[in-house]
Amino acid sequence: MDISMRQLTEIPRAEALSLLAGATLGRIVFTAHALPAVRLVSHIVEEAAIVIRSHYGAAIIRVRPEGDGGPRERAANDIVVAYEADEFDSDAGLGWSVAVTGTAALVRDPGDIARYERMLPAWNKDGGIAGQFVRICPEIVTGYRFACGTG
Amino acid sequence: MDISMRQLTEIPRAEALSLLAGATLGRIVFTAHALPAVRLVSHIVEEAAIVIRSHYGAAIIRVRPEGDGGPRERAANDIVVAYEADEFDSDAGLGWSVAVTGTAALVRDPGDIARYERMLPAWNKDGGIAGQFVRICPEIVTGYRFACGTG
Repeated sequence: MDISMRQLTEIPRAEALSLLAGATLGRIVFTAHALPAVRLVSHIVEEAAIVIRSHYGAAIIRVRPEGDGGPRERAANDIVVAYEADEFDSDAGLGWSVAVTGTAALVRDPGDIARYERMLPAWNKDGGIAGQFVRICPEIVTGYRFACGTG
Repeated sequence: MDISMRQLTEIPRAEALSLLAGATLGRIVFTAHALPAVRLVSHIVEEAAIVIRSHYGAAIIRVRPEGDGGPRERAANDIVVAYEADEFDSDAGLGWSVAVTGTAALVRDPGDIARYERMLPAWNKDGGIAGQFVRICPEIVTGYRFACGTG
């Protein structure tokens, strides 16, 4: 058990997004059945947006059919989610974590979907549901580096 | 960029909690200023409860002072949070992720606090706020192993 002290240093937004872009796994935070939920997913960063592939795509976005035939997709663009990625080098005792809060929407453009299918691995479960792509536009970006000292 | 397929296999609850107990870092999911938030923290597992140490302890639990002098601590025991830990061996292409949803409460017993101060490292920020301890009782436990193949 590591009981050493850990020192935190904040990371500027641009550097935090750059670290996120260099990682391949992260955790999407959403609401499922009115409860907080979190799932490990793979991601890419493209033009400052985070794109994930998830079986939970529909649950994350929670598109509610409008009784009056209203705009489904507009509602789907208003969902606020959080996303987190981190890396920790236990040998060096150094790591970083970046947490993002932003709005999420299902990717619906066929060209985008085809491109992301080549870029993001599918996570197959129970015979291969490939999942949906969700694009997250970061608004609040919080990053820090941490170091484990001996203090 | 790894574009291989990934196979998911569900992990039974007891095994998932055992994997969680063997990890030292995880991500606490909570609501801050009415927005979803996620932060990397350190944890221990004790008698099937997850105990974390965080600067965000008060924000996670969100104890609201009752105008009528009502029971603060009871309100603090009703907060639902999510918690996630994972490990990925990129050489072997194998990993696991465990996500928990449960109720969280600030640890208030002085004996427990003293014990956890010895067991859980402090994350010092801006000169050393040691943070609060939060105990999470897991209710929903979801775990899976994933393997990266060549399919």
